Amino acid sequence: MRLSRYFMPILKENPKEAEIVSHRLMLRTGMIRQQSQGIYSWLPLGKRVLDKVNAIIREEQNRAGAIELLMPTLQSADLWKESGRYDAYGKEMLRITDRQERPMLYGPTNEEMVTDIFRSYVKSYKDLPLNLYHIQLKFRDEIRPRFGTMRSREFLMKDAYSFDLTREGAEHSYNKMFAAYLRTFSRLGLRAIPMRADTGPIGGNLSHEFIILADTGESEVFCHKDFVNFDIPAADTDFDDVDGLKAIFDKWTSVYAATSEMHDAPAFEAIPEGERLSARGIEVGHIFYFGTKYSEPMGAKVQGPDGKEHFVHMGSYGIGPTRLVPAIIEASHDENGIIWPASVAPFDAVVINMKAGDAACDSACERIYGALRNAGTDVLYDDTDDRAGTKFATADLIGVPVQVIAGPRGVANGEIELKDRKTGARETMTIEAAINKLTA
Amino acid sequence: MRLSRYFMPILKENPKEAEIVSHRLMLRTGMIRQQSQGIYSWLPLGKRVLDKVNAIIREEQNRAGAIELLMPTLQSADLWKESGRYDAYGKEMLRITDRQERPMLYGPTNEEMVTDIFRSYVKSYKDLPLNLYHIQLKFRDEIRPRFGTMRSREFLMKDAYSFDLTREGAEHSYNKMFAAYLRTFSRLGLRAIPMRADTGPIGGNLSHEFIILADTGESEVFCHKDFVNFDIPAADTDFDDVDGLKAIFDKWTSVYAATSEMHDAPAFEAIPEGERLSARGIEVGHIFYFGTKYSEPMGAKVQGPDGKEHFVHMGSYGIGPTRLVPAIIEASHDENGIIWPASVAPFDAVVINMKAGDAACDSACERIYGALRNAGTDVLYDDTDDRAGTKFATADLIGVPVQVIAGPRGVANGEIELKDRKTGARETMTIEAAINKLTA
Repeated sequence: MRLSRYFMPILKENPKEAEIVSHRLMLRTGMIRQQSQGIYSWLPLGKRVLDKVNAIIREEQNRAGAIELLMPTLQSADLWKESGRYDAYGKEMLRITDRQERPMLYGPTNEEMVTDIFRSYVKSYKDLPLNLYHIQLKFRDEIRPRFGTMRSREFLMKDAYSFDLTREGAEHSYNKMFAAYLRTFSRLGLRAIPMRADTGPIGGNLSHEFIILADTGESEVFCHKDFVNFDIPAADTDFDDVDGLKAIFDKWTSVYAATSEMHDAPAFEAIPEGERLSARGIEVGHIFYFGTKYSEPMGAKVQGPDGKEHFVHMGSYGIGPTRLVPAIIEASHDENGIIWPASVAPFDAVVINMKAGDAACDSACERIYGALRNAGTDVLYDDTDDRAGTKFATADLIGVPVQVIAGPRGVANGEIELKDRKTGARETMTIEAAINKLTA
Repeated sequence: MRLSRYFMPILKENPKEAEIVSHRLMLRTGMIRQQSQGIYSWLPLGKRVLDKVNAIIREEQNRAGAIELLMPTLQSADLWKESGRYDAYGKEMLRITDRQERPMLYGPTNEEMVTDIFRSYVKSYKDLPLNLYHIQLKFRDEIRPRFGTMRSREFLMKDAYSFDLTREGAEHSYNKMFAAYLRTFSRLGLRAIPMRADTGPIGGNLSHEFIILADTGESEVFCHKDFVNFDIPAADTDFDDVDGLKAIFDKWTSVYAATSEMHDAPAFEAIPEGERLSARGIEVGHIFYFGTKYSEPMGAKVQGPDGKEHFVHMGSYGIGPTRLVPAIIEASHDENGIIWPASVAPFDAVVINMKAGDAACDSACERIYGALRNAGTDVLYDDTDDRAGTKFATADLIGVPVQVIAGPRGVANGEIELKDRKTGARETMTIEAAINKLTA
């Protein structure tokens, strides 16, 4: 992408309304724009990151055997009356009346709708286990949306829903998502810690939040320092291996970790002081087992091997991609801007032409830009006539992992400079060597 | 994907509510499910097709220089009051009041919001031309939604918006989208004919609908038969070539074509009778040039090379992916089911195990399934214990282009059968030859 043809409105000033660093950096880099209170557009740079986050979430859901569909945003109130949540949900639910005067709502979550889909088609235990997920917009009419897309009203959520014949089956489904979440957050460059959590309005009796540590976190969290060294499940994890997944779950729940709601101070203080971690965290995922809470009132049952009908045991599993993006920034930035993990960077590399209009610089940059594009690299080419200093600042601000810097002096010797955004390390090399290195 | 682990709820009976073949087939194959009147879930098989359609639309928008972002579904009523459309839009606009009593709406289109984004950041003609698009849900509260996702209330739309300094620039932007649309529909296996159209509530004075011919079409259309042989712009079309794109536009608008709203009977009858085509069609895209209709009331202006401020000239360009899917089915099916064009098929091939449980059949199918998966093919493996006849019927119904049929007799000789869904042609070959052919 040539920057001269791109739409990346960098703000020169720090926006006053931003209270936390991710919100400030997302506004400054032109990743997002607030359209109404707590409702955001994802501008092109932000959209790229969001797409990469979604792609990783999707790959790991699929790997764990979950199947993607797409449920609509608007739901009928009738469904929610069946589960009893229509009245219980309160003012966060955006209630809507259509032109036929039918009561509707903008889905804040999809337990009811997916249970309705399930009961319409699935009649036998032979079709279980089943895990259906979608990545779809949700709306929760928070009284005080804040921190940009960290806590917005319209937001994207990946929500998966598992269906099993028995509680034991449901626990295995839960462990699949538990392992998938560990892999997902790790691939996003985050170390997430699963913590026993309150189930809130979703209900049920087994639930974990996945929390990443950050000073700006909304939650107070307490855990054992050992988490930092636990192994992430491998890419070839066998998700059908009941005992293997149980072992992963047991390992990751073997030492103390809790949010303030579930905090057990004496248990925490029993940990040697040097091994205790008390910090603030950001919730980036939440998983629930809630048994037959929805299947019973909504009549979602299957015929079992015993010939009798059984209400299915369900769980739900959420990750908020529009919240993950700022969470990644909170975890990875410096005073000059964002430092994207390579897996979600909007571009893999940025080519900086220090003197656009100079024939040798232009030619060197075009050559590099063309070669990287042909190799399938996502590359941004800063071909604008801004000053070199402005270009360096922008490249640091937007946090692309590798900067390829071409100036008149180097280019005269057939050389450019590679800069690693994270370490700041610079290396001079021939154009050919740079192309080889970046397309290897 | 193993069918035994997939969620593809095939209906045995033809659903009574479906009036047209695409609606019937989408329900029967478990592609979609109605959740409320005119509001659908896309079940896994449908979601796969929808994703492939979106990917082609996106590639062609990007090729033409349009830049993707993502605007939210809910909009503030204030924006629409600025353009004057809040009162004018009528009951199709779903109006919503949030908990703070602010008037909102579920966006039926995004001219106002994108103009607001533009005016917030772009101040100089040097940043033009600009074309921003998104693929986002829309809601239009139709009094009579029907034909499944062909005319639903919540639907997906790709909408692009171009911004230019001058009318001439805007016409070039229009021609870019015109050529991109011809390419898009062609890649989707459709022959679309651009027709002069009424601009409706979007406004403006230059507009084309892209119509595909189908007996079930809602519009009556009239055109010259020559369209069938016109060349589609090539993949290496230079979208910066003003004259080249104008030539494409001129060619494709050189002979008579009009919807009934714009029909000029004497002009049509001047065409020799054997070259006239009068038929029903389905609108699959609509493009508009509307000059300063939104930029003037909303103050979207840039400084020109003359140092003065100019209201920008705008156009908008829509394609409905959730309508395209049934449109493709209307254009491509037979009495046994859907015939997907390869570009959008939910799977590239289906492996049919005629006798699941038979060791030789299982082993042959696993070998083929594994080889196709490893080669990156989207392959469905019917490993269920259904009867062979049921599997054949299902494979035909869901319209996957290639069927790989493995039965005990053939497998005993190391052979399988390949069936082409479209032609019905069958070919017996060794397992090795089949793998080579399908992974070539």
